[in-house]
Amino acid sequence: MANCQVRFLPADREASVAAGTLLSDAAQQAGVDINMPCGGQGRCGRCAVIVEEGPVRRHSTERLSPEDVAAGYCLACQTAVEGHVVVTVPPQEKIERRLDTSKRAAKVTLPFPYSMRDQPLRKFVVTLDPPSLEDQTDDWSRVHRELARRYDLDEVTASLPVLRRLATALRQGDWTVTAVVELDNWQRPQGPPRLIDVLPGERLESLWAIAMDIGTTSNVVWLVDLISGEVMVQKADYNGQIARGEDVISRIIYASKNENGLEELQQLVVNTFNGLLQELTEERNIDADEIYKAVVSGNSTMLHLFTGIPPETIRLMPFVTVVNQLPPFEAREIGLGINPAAAVDCLPGIASYVGADITAGVISSGMCGEDEALTLFVDVGTNGEMVLGDCSWLIACACSAGPAFEGAGVVDGMRATAGAIEEVWVDQETYEARYRVIGDEKPRGLCGSGLISLMAEMFVAGVIDKSGNVNLELDTDRVREGEHGGEYVVAWGDETESGKDIVITDVDLDNLMRAKAAIYAGFSILARSVGLTLDVVERVLIGGAFGQYINVEKAIQIGLLPDMPYDSFHFLGNTSVRGAYMALISREQRERVAEVGEMMTYLELSADNTFFDEFNAALFLPHTDADKFPSVDVS
Amino acid sequence: MANCQVRFLPADREASVAAGTLLSDAAQQAGVDINMPCGGQGRCGRCAVIVEEGPVRRHSTERLSPEDVAAGYCLACQTAVEGHVVVTVPPQEKIERRLDTSKRAAKVTLPFPYSMRDQPLRKFVVTLDPPSLEDQTDDWSRVHRELARRYDLDEVTASLPVLRRLATALRQGDWTVTAVVELDNWQRPQGPPRLIDVLPGERLESLWAIAMDIGTTSNVVWLVDLISGEVMVQKADYNGQIARGEDVISRIIYASKNENGLEELQQLVVNTFNGLLQELTEERNIDADEIYKAVVSGNSTMLHLFTGIPPETIRLMPFVTVVNQLPPFEAREIGLGINPAAAVDCLPGIASYVGADITAGVISSGMCGEDEALTLFVDVGTNGEMVLGDCSWLIACACSAGPAFEGAGVVDGMRATAGAIEEVWVDQETYEARYRVIGDEKPRGLCGSGLISLMAEMFVAGVIDKSGNVNLELDTDRVREGEHGGEYVVAWGDETESGKDIVITDVDLDNLMRAKAAIYAGFSILARSVGLTLDVVERVLIGGAFGQYINVEKAIQIGLLPDMPYDSFHFLGNTSVRGAYMALISREQRERVAEVGEMMTYLELSADNTFFDEFNAALFLPHTDADKFPSVDVS
Repeated sequence: MANCQVRFLPADREASVAAGTLLSDAAQQAGVDINMPCGGQGRCGRCAVIVEEGPVRRHSTERLSPEDVAAGYCLACQTAVEGHVVVTVPPQEKIERRLDTSKRAAKVTLPFPYSMRDQPLRKFVVTLDPPSLEDQTDDWSRVHRELARRYDLDEVTASLPVLRRLATALRQGDWTVTAVVELDNWQRPQGPPRLIDVLPGERLESLWAIAMDIGTTSNVVWLVDLISGEVMVQKADYNGQIARGEDVISRIIYASKNENGLEELQQLVVNTFNGLLQELTEERNIDADEIYKAVVSGNSTMLHLFTGIPPETIRLMPFVTVVNQLPPFEAREIGLGINPAAAVDCLPGIASYVGADITAGVISSGMCGEDEALTLFVDVGTNGEMVLGDCSWLIACACSAGPAFEGAGVVDGMRATAGAIEEVWVDQETYEARYRVIGDEKPRGLCGSGLISLMAEMFVAGVIDKSGNVNLELDTDRVREGEHGGEYVVAWGDETESGKDIVITDVDLDNLMRAKAAIYAGFSILARSVGLTLDVVERVLIGGAFGQYINVEKAIQIGLLPDMPYDSFHFLGNTSVRGAYMALISREQRERVAEVGEMMTYLELSADNTFFDEFNAALFLPHTDADKFPSVDVS
Repeated sequence: MANCQVRFLPADREASVAAGTLLSDAAQQAGVDINMPCGGQGRCGRCAVIVEEGPVRRHSTERLSPEDVAAGYCLACQTAVEGHVVVTVPPQEKIERRLDTSKRAAKVTLPFPYSMRDQPLRKFVVTLDPPSLEDQTDDWSRVHRELARRYDLDEVTASLPVLRRLATALRQGDWTVTAVVELDNWQRPQGPPRLIDVLPGERLESLWAIAMDIGTTSNVVWLVDLISGEVMVQKADYNGQIARGEDVISRIIYASKNENGLEELQQLVVNTFNGLLQELTEERNIDADEIYKAVVSGNSTMLHLFTGIPPETIRLMPFVTVVNQLPPFEAREIGLGINPAAAVDCLPGIASYVGADITAGVISSGMCGEDEALTLFVDVGTNGEMVLGDCSWLIACACSAGPAFEGAGVVDGMRATAGAIEEVWVDQETYEARYRVIGDEKPRGLCGSGLISLMAEMFVAGVIDKSGNVNLELDTDRVREGEHGGEYVVAWGDETESGKDIVITDVDLDNLMRAKAAIYAGFSILARSVGLTLDVVERVLIGGAFGQYINVEKAIQIGLLPDMPYDSFHFLGNTSVRGAYMALISREQRERVAEVGEMMTYLELSADNTFFDEFNAALFLPHTDADKFPSVDVS
């Protein structure tokens, strides 16, 4: 097959590919990064590039105007090369950090009293008689014999990686070694114990493990000292998969549509964690091989991708996972950069869209603890997952709110990074806007909390009506007819980074309305399914990074959260990683996660006839039924 | 560091390396194969190459004459490049096949009645209700639930590789699948069962496994049908490690001396098996992924190298292995080309030089069966291992006979391949020689059985004396003074492939004498250690490929084998792979191998003061004590 040279500017890198190859694949081959938030479906328009020279064929130009096409723009994921071509890749959106780092994150306190015996990872020191011509016992039997004699570890097993290190460790340690042993796990509660590592000499000074949360957007790792039980370092970064799809659906499509797409996504998320692990081990001056266990939380799609299991079934009717409770495995099986024989324990989820992040969230939220208060636990990220119940029952559902609250599907939307407008005030007389921007920068767009704030303020000020449409009759320059219908100018071009106005349009507002309606409908259905109404809920626990920045008053004003006293709402931050941490330091909590999974009833909204009624009823500010929002003044 | 271009002729391949790099390493980088039978120690002289251009530094020129050095010859393993160089690699000795292939090998009969229930690998068919919005149970739980319900496999566990295939298998099989399960193994005799694979549909027609023997020289694999228990195909090839060392010591040195030497040797032997597996699966038209278990036998060094465990301690005082009984592991852990989750079970050895090949040999020889005859089991390969005992006791030792009987350390020695003289007759009157050559070819050298035959004939004809020295007084052109002392011409140049005479020298004879003396000393010491003499031994069982071609009469004449009636000797062929096969098809036999290992006493000859006395006494034809060889006419 004829080869085509594809040259990418400004990086000046080349790939040699067969005719018919997509530009996005050629870019990958050339090592040029092109963001594809929709996962290469041709829907988001963010992979637009300019063809400077040479023949290409555009399969789709959705999201491009005729002018763009005339100017040479095309979507890299929808355009095949047909000869030698030269392509210019516009600067890609840079992800800037606004994640908890060890310096900024609040210190995590021990959630309960800790003893090393509460968890199964342990170190044992043995001193052996060296071999001689009179006793030629092999190294492993010699270690085994002494572990059995001194510590009753008769049944301890070893794997090849630790046997490969054994001879050196024994001789370096002059026949005193420290054995790192996992006594049991949930799958083998009675053992046998498993030897993970053998270190030369006496090495009882440390015992490291990690708790991990694999978010669709953010990846978090906590370094835990299993001697004290304390969290010593917290690290976070954006999930390296983001460039291959913003939400789980895009990633699932990417994984199944592209050859090696699954392997690529697996590698990307593992690399993200390996980068964090490198930072973390350098900071504490420890060797990554000294980390002997990882407990992992995350939504079901993320856990499938992390372990290389095809997630396709999650996306397709009837929406089942391949596995809700992964078996324990060793770090080397997925290339995670800790000790190769370290145990990796992924927490159990209960359904495609109620994953381990939610079971972990429930235990760490304390919603099913001794307190019998009827509680609503909500984790709003790209999806909205929610759990209702108390210490004796739990019911959960998930609604695909879509990524509107993460800034996608909104003309000037962006993630909550530097330059994002995170809070807006609209004057009820003049309709003028004031806003607060993340970082000391000119505004570049609107993030989720900014959008909620803006929508609420516009509603209360009367800039939009109950259906979310901009009132074009108002006496202000800020409302106008734009390309996408009515729009409101939040920031004028002379104030912004790009020099262009930052606006919110009727289409954006419609997306936001649908997102908030989906979430509120979820709340309603959960309550109704157990014969309750939302007004009997005693508290709302909000997990997830998104929740941390939400303005409750404004979220109630748009009908996103139920109308309850503000002190009923508690923001818990990343409940998922905290649940992983609790399961790591306590067998009892690890069992609790499994029990929560078993006791939780999953309500499939797409099988619920009342969902669309509830959803439609919620497509109104704050709601069709104003009685549900007595505190919101809709006069 | 300055780069040097190293160009290899006639292949015309190049490597770019740092100054100081050995030519052998450069050749490897360039993909040029250079044999290094001594493992790169500069001792064997077989890696000689010619430097045509450019500066090099010779660390050692042992085995090269001053004329060779003047002509540009150097040892690739002992010569560092110091600039751009051009090197000619002489044609490398080609290994030609004379190994059992499926066509030539005798059919293996079932050693005992077989039922599939005698071994733990099993297939189970389940038909599942497909998932629906009413039952969104995850795929794995769905399979697990049905395996528990129908087959009581409540505790069955799965690993990531099988979970990665699960969704596809279920849907391709329209919710009927065949589960491949290993119910137990020696390490977990009570289970839990382990799911190895899930195949779409009902797939009960086959159940494949393999038995493997990793010889230092030859690698053998048998394909076993676990439905009938029968061996369906036999394949053999030379161990790909040979070019990195002829014997275990050279390989151990190679593994520890070279960066990545261990990984390289591991890869070479795995690649050899993967090649055999490819032939075998193509021949039977099966998928390698359908092979679900491997039972592996081999000497201790080979099992260390196969699993990537450093073998260094085997070579150094006090000669211990890292592990005599490897844990069961999965094929993917070492890259063996069968189902990635297939169980690999390496049989137990008992010492550095009495490995699994001997414990397996003992069970397959039947020496410790119901027959109570006092038996000597011998496996002569590169080392000589021997076991003495009956059904109630066993004692074993190993003597490093050296590779003389495999044709190394002998001027015109070679392996038992086409062109090798395998049998010689020397006329007692004229001292003329007749010989038989393997294959229909001109002779190229002498293999082990040829050497034994030659030595015995020369001794009986009086061409050599009892000390093994050539009698230069004889009235024949065939005896003469050569470069290495006295020598005897076996074949004149006009008869041979190379046109040069094929001779045996005093130095060669000395090597052979030492080899046979070491083995006979081993026999003597074994017997003496239990207060017996060799004349009470009732039978001698000879394992190993070497044994198959030995002429017993002649082996007795030179004092290699004890002087017993010919019908006391039984040639068993490859007892090692046969033992692996028996352990594969029977849990009872697998236990028996372990029991044999436990009941066998290992006698370390280097710790035995009497070894050198016995060895010295045996440095004579047939022996210093002629009474031990009454049948040999030494008049």
